[in-house]
Amino acid sequence: MAILSALATEVFIPVAAVIGIAFAVVQWVLVSRVKLSPAAAASGGSKNGYGDYLIEEEEGLNDHNVVVKCAEIQTAISEGATSFLFTEYQYVGIFMSIFAVVIFLFLGSVEGFSTKSQPCTYSKDKYCKPALFTALFSTVSFLLGAITSLVSGFLGMKIATYANARTTLEARKGVGKAFITAFRSGAVMGFLLASSGLVVLYITINVFKLYYGDDWEGLFESITGYGLGGSSMALFGRVGGGIYTKAADVGADLVGKVERNIPEDDPRNPAVIADNVGDNVGDIAGMGSDLFGSYAESSCAALVVASISSFGINHDFTGMCYPLLVSSVGIIVCLITTLFATDFFEVKAVKEIEPALKKQLIISTVLMTVGIAVISWLALPAKFTIFNFGTQKDVSNWGLFFCVAIGLWAGLIIGFVTEYYTSNAYSPVQDVADSCRTGAATNVIFGLALGYKSVIIPIFAIAVSIYVSFSIAAMYGIAVAALGMLSTIATGLAIDAYGPISDNAGGIAEMAGMSHRIRERTDALDAAGNTTAAIGKGFAIGSAALVSLALFGAFVSRAGVKVVDVLSPKVFIGLIVGAMLPYWFSAMTMKSVGSAALKMVEEVRRQFNTIPGLMEGTAKPDYATCVKISTDASIKEMIPPGALVMLTPLIVGTLFGVETLSGVLAGALVSGVQIAISASNTGGAWDNAKKYIEAGASEHARTLGPKGSDCHKAAVIGDTIGDPLKDTSGPSLNILIKLMAVESLVFAPFFATHGGLLFKYL
Amino acid sequence: MAILSALATEVFIPVAAVIGIAFAVVQWVLVSRVKLSPAAAASGGSKNGYGDYLIEEEEGLNDHNVVVKCAEIQTAISEGATSFLFTEYQYVGIFMSIFAVVIFLFLGSVEGFSTKSQPCTYSKDKYCKPALFTALFSTVSFLLGAITSLVSGFLGMKIATYANARTTLEARKGVGKAFITAFRSGAVMGFLLASSGLVVLYITINVFKLYYGDDWEGLFESITGYGLGGSSMALFGRVGGGIYTKAADVGADLVGKVERNIPEDDPRNPAVIADNVGDNVGDIAGMGSDLFGSYAESSCAALVVASISSFGINHDFTGMCYPLLVSSVGIIVCLITTLFATDFFEVKAVKEIEPALKKQLIISTVLMTVGIAVISWLALPAKFTIFNFGTQKDVSNWGLFFCVAIGLWAGLIIGFVTEYYTSNAYSPVQDVADSCRTGAATNVIFGLALGYKSVIIPIFAIAVSIYVSFSIAAMYGIAVAALGMLSTIATGLAIDAYGPISDNAGGIAEMAGMSHRIRERTDALDAAGNTTAAIGKGFAIGSAALVSLALFGAFVSRAGVKVVDVLSPKVFIGLIVGAMLPYWFSAMTMKSVGSAALKMVEEVRRQFNTIPGLMEGTAKPDYATCVKISTDASIKEMIPPGALVMLTPLIVGTLFGVETLSGVLAGALVSGVQIAISASNTGGAWDNAKKYIEAGASEHARTLGPKGSDCHKAAVIGDTIGDPLKDTSGPSLNILIKLMAVESLVFAPFFATHGGLLFKYL
Repeated sequence: MAILSALATEVFIPVAAVIGIAFAVVQWVLVSRVKLSPAAAASGGSKNGYGDYLIEEEEGLNDHNVVVKCAEIQTAISEGATSFLFTEYQYVGIFMSIFAVVIFLFLGSVEGFSTKSQPCTYSKDKYCKPALFTALFSTVSFLLGAITSLVSGFLGMKIATYANARTTLEARKGVGKAFITAFRSGAVMGFLLASSGLVVLYITINVFKLYYGDDWEGLFESITGYGLGGSSMALFGRVGGGIYTKAADVGADLVGKVERNIPEDDPRNPAVIADNVGDNVGDIAGMGSDLFGSYAESSCAALVVASISSFGINHDFTGMCYPLLVSSVGIIVCLITTLFATDFFEVKAVKEIEPALKKQLIISTVLMTVGIAVISWLALPAKFTIFNFGTQKDVSNWGLFFCVAIGLWAGLIIGFVTEYYTSNAYSPVQDVADSCRTGAATNVIFGLALGYKSVIIPIFAIAVSIYVSFSIAAMYGIAVAALGMLSTIATGLAIDAYGPISDNAGGIAEMAGMSHRIRERTDALDAAGNTTAAIGKGFAIGSAALVSLALFGAFVSRAGVKVVDVLSPKVFIGLIVGAMLPYWFSAMTMKSVGSAALKMVEEVRRQFNTIPGLMEGTAKPDYATCVKISTDASIKEMIPPGALVMLTPLIVGTLFGVETLSGVLAGALVSGVQIAISASNTGGAWDNAKKYIEAGASEHARTLGPKGSDCHKAAVIGDTIGDPLKDTSGPSLNILIKLMAVESLVFAPFFATHGGLLFKYL
Repeated sequence: MAILSALATEVFIPVAAVIGIAFAVVQWVLVSRVKLSPAAAASGGSKNGYGDYLIEEEEGLNDHNVVVKCAEIQTAISEGATSFLFTEYQYVGIFMSIFAVVIFLFLGSVEGFSTKSQPCTYSKDKYCKPALFTALFSTVSFLLGAITSLVSGFLGMKIATYANARTTLEARKGVGKAFITAFRSGAVMGFLLASSGLVVLYITINVFKLYYGDDWEGLFESITGYGLGGSSMALFGRVGGGIYTKAADVGADLVGKVERNIPEDDPRNPAVIADNVGDNVGDIAGMGSDLFGSYAESSCAALVVASISSFGINHDFTGMCYPLLVSSVGIIVCLITTLFATDFFEVKAVKEIEPALKKQLIISTVLMTVGIAVISWLALPAKFTIFNFGTQKDVSNWGLFFCVAIGLWAGLIIGFVTEYYTSNAYSPVQDVADSCRTGAATNVIFGLALGYKSVIIPIFAIAVSIYVSFSIAAMYGIAVAALGMLSTIATGLAIDAYGPISDNAGGIAEMAGMSHRIRERTDALDAAGNTTAAIGKGFAIGSAALVSLALFGAFVSRAGVKVVDVLSPKVFIGLIVGAMLPYWFSAMTMKSVGSAALKMVEEVRRQFNTIPGLMEGTAKPDYATCVKISTDASIKEMIPPGALVMLTPLIVGTLFGVETLSGVLAGALVSGVQIAISASNTGGAWDNAKKYIEAGASEHARTLGPKGSDCHKAAVIGDTIGDPLKDTSGPSLNILIKLMAVESLVFAPFFATHGGLLFKYL
């Protein structure tokens, strides 16, 4: 047996979660010390320790007015984001309610809504709880997952909009102070999300256990609904938020930067508030839901496989909770890592920002490796068996440590490769910038080629992780490898959320009319954020690939499929159609962004043409109409792609059966992961190629610039094309591949019993 | 037994091939009646029936000079193309020689270079010829395939460069005459290629049979080298030609159209000859080799499966030759179809061109359906068995008819969908054109979305074909479905080759300074050619998908793999890495085009800046340097992508074994087919969106134009980006997926014996 007792496990997991939440609260208190009310800043200045900034900077500006303006803009952004999310949640709520009924009916029908106990699926000699109750509990855990995801995204948005103006104000005191404010705010989101995801899952398991008792097979089968709920919410969050943010961004840029030649985030641009709202609902709330979904799904995939392995069969609670224990250790490790950025070292100059963020990744990975080793030694028996498509496979605790660690390190490799291809410190982005000399066409050709090339190493890293972790511990190995990649999620999210917060901070500085020096500082924060956002997407995609493979494995196990043979036509047609789905999905999301952006462009043009004094800055634009255009477009346009993803597994499973569905899942996975990586890296590279030309930091960059040159115009076109690729269609594909897999897993009992109608009756 | 005797088969196949060749010669004679020497045109004018054109048109122009100029330009293009192809062939020759040695050594080593007979692979009780001789014959058939492919491409280029100026001259008499000249020339190429491919394969089989006698298993195993040879040549033809043509095209456009504001094909542009040469080496020679490769491979795949089915086991020669008989019937059907375009009906107006070409597709498909029914009835026994991964499956002759027919009709559906998405007569392209209002960025976003969307129906068509034909006749069904799609190859190629010939004719008209009316006619021919080129690519990709699946099936059979289980990590890592290969390959080819185009741009700019009087038309540009840049770039740049494709199966098979290789093939197939379709449709749509704005044929189109407007400039950027997508990376992907499959098949005996070193010793 393991060293860690069941009781110790029962205590350790919630304690780690509570520590995470407490840490998030502390970070929030530290951020909240920056006062946004001018009175407090003026009178109580010395009290909160921030009274000295008036001396250091902004000598010429009326400080009172600046603070008031920042607070006003922040309120506008926060209100816009809140109102959009509420509208989105209404529609998603309707969908979730319907889908909850579907889950209950489909799963309840497996045994004809019987309330009698039945033989277990895997241990045929035992009796398990009736399918009807598992249907009910699956529905409940689905709703819990959806609500947790929703709350995670919403809180993230709230914190980000709380922090953006504060970061701007701190930027007056220097880049280091601003960095810490933005980073702390990101950490609030990261720790809240990681901890609440863990604690809700943990409580749910314990509550469900009251009913299920020793029937762990049924217990963890019903828990998979949690992953499905989290991911369904993430789909709408990513797609809706992604369309919102990019419609506003593309629309604002096309008229503002290209036609009117006014800077980014200029307050005269009517779409500027919508653009800033978009960062919060897309990059913050959407991303939060997405990573929460990955986390919930990989935990569920690992748990469901563990429940039919020796942990579940022998009722080894500590071993069973190993996935949760890894996450708990992750929270502690990330906590220590965060202190390196905020307390142990101080960022003093612009050029220290990127290394500081990179160090976060390296430190968390190194510490986590130790953490995994310790918890594997404590929580796992020296030898145990893992379910492997019908048989049991012997695994050692060190083997499993290796699975988690390889996922963790593969994530770091993917992160570094992503950085290499998207940071303008290296030659790939500089080559793309250079190709702008001959115009937008060559810029696009080089950018697309860069994105295609950037998939090579990540795919090899994923392939090696899969091979090694599968060889050691079958599908359980892959699930824990995914968990390993996600174990430092709190740090990952902190870094990720830092980007849009800095972006917003820059926007607020511009809109509040703050000095050029402040804007330069927030721009520097933002440029580093661009690269880290790309790294975050790399992590998200890599983990999505592993997670969905693990879910796929759990699905085929549950559906009783022994072999998914490519040589069978049922499987092959699934494979080729599945590989097509990411294209179909991307076509929808990109077209949505394009159409919504066209509408936005027309509105912005209309306002510039009809509101007298707008260009001169004497009249205010009508921000609300632009916000409404983005809101309406994203709500309307998120439905078809959402339906495609949610309905495909149901239709394929019901009509064509589990073999074809297996093919679809495998096809979507191997094809989608490539498009997702290439789309987000292409977009990131174009964005940073543009920033490279704008910043003009090197001799080479200066030959291409300055802003407004032909080269720069070509770079802006590339950046605009990249927007929907990197922030809408690319990242949504993660969810496509994960969600279809987890949905198939949840509905597996139904498909196994009633699926494949078309082939049955043909 | 079948109604058609073995003797009748022996006679029918070569007779059909000879008829095809004779028909090609007749068409050539008809084209050659258009005289390019001014003396003949003036004096012998009435003799050849073309003397009357002087009266009809070109009253103001000095006819003598125009003809001389056309002849000069034609000579320049023809010499450029010939010299490039010879350079290309030298390098390819070296590669082919080395690869021939590799084939011999690898296959010879299977039984340790023993000259003793050995038990057959499938019929273990019989003795087959020694592996060493099969290695030798495979090498010979490899070289034969390569040479036939090379000759096909070369002859196609020769005919196209022979016909282009003649089409220009005929355009003076009206659009109908020009159409017939261009179409006849395309037909020369189509029939020559289809017939020579058939006859060489037929003769090879008969010659090899002298050695192999009753060992049909060994005979048709060695014949697969023919497909490998054809496809290897096609790879270099497509990639080399594709880089050549697009480097020249993109380079010429970027400086000529965008910077200098001179029309396309203006003789002042130094890259104009290179651009026209490119059409012939890329779109003609490359495409010819590509489709020849598909044809050779699908025949080989069908034959190798047939040899281990009842046809081969019972030595039923007619049944065995069924794939060749289908192709023979195809030649006859295409011959009749061609007469509909050239003799039965006459194209009189511009708007009749596209329908005439579409009718070709429909007529050939309908007639061919009848043809297949007849030959299936005549050549096949009522019942026979087909090898199906270790077992034999019962199939009826009508079942097999259905397999071929479904492939044929799936091809037509793919053709029509492609037309819908790439012709500017329909809303998708018009929407893309409309998005140019807001600039190049939205144009690119909409174009990419269009390409992604356009894969949906073709993939469903392919999936249905696969399911149905596999269910009926296992992998043999898929191979003959591919043959069905390719059975009207002569017509398909005629339509395809017609495009670049018309494109060249327009270029010559511009360069020879012919009147605006002539240019309008050639433009109309060219616009129709753009759509048919996209249709041709659709066929090429659809058939490539089926062919490579059939080859894949033959490979796994030969390698003794019974199951390719996605749940096995060996297979899955192959699958995900295979799905990545098309991206790696596209990254290389696109970057190559981009880099070569940059060099071209610099050279063209240099000439405009340094040659006095060039813009005024008083000095001649230095065409030769531009030709050299394209040549050098394409030769140098075709090697890395070529190596990637050729080496991957060898490395994976040798180090990781046949299971991983199966995964790689399946992954590359399902991922590559999507990128190939979307790339070529996106490119085609951008090209025609630009033409839509330029032509200004509708009210809507006129609001976007005219040439030189902001909308048009945005459209030109899209068109330029689409060039490498539709003419280099997209179509090369067909070859990637086919070639890796056929190479695996040829090397299957080696991999089965010595493969998987890494897993063996780890």
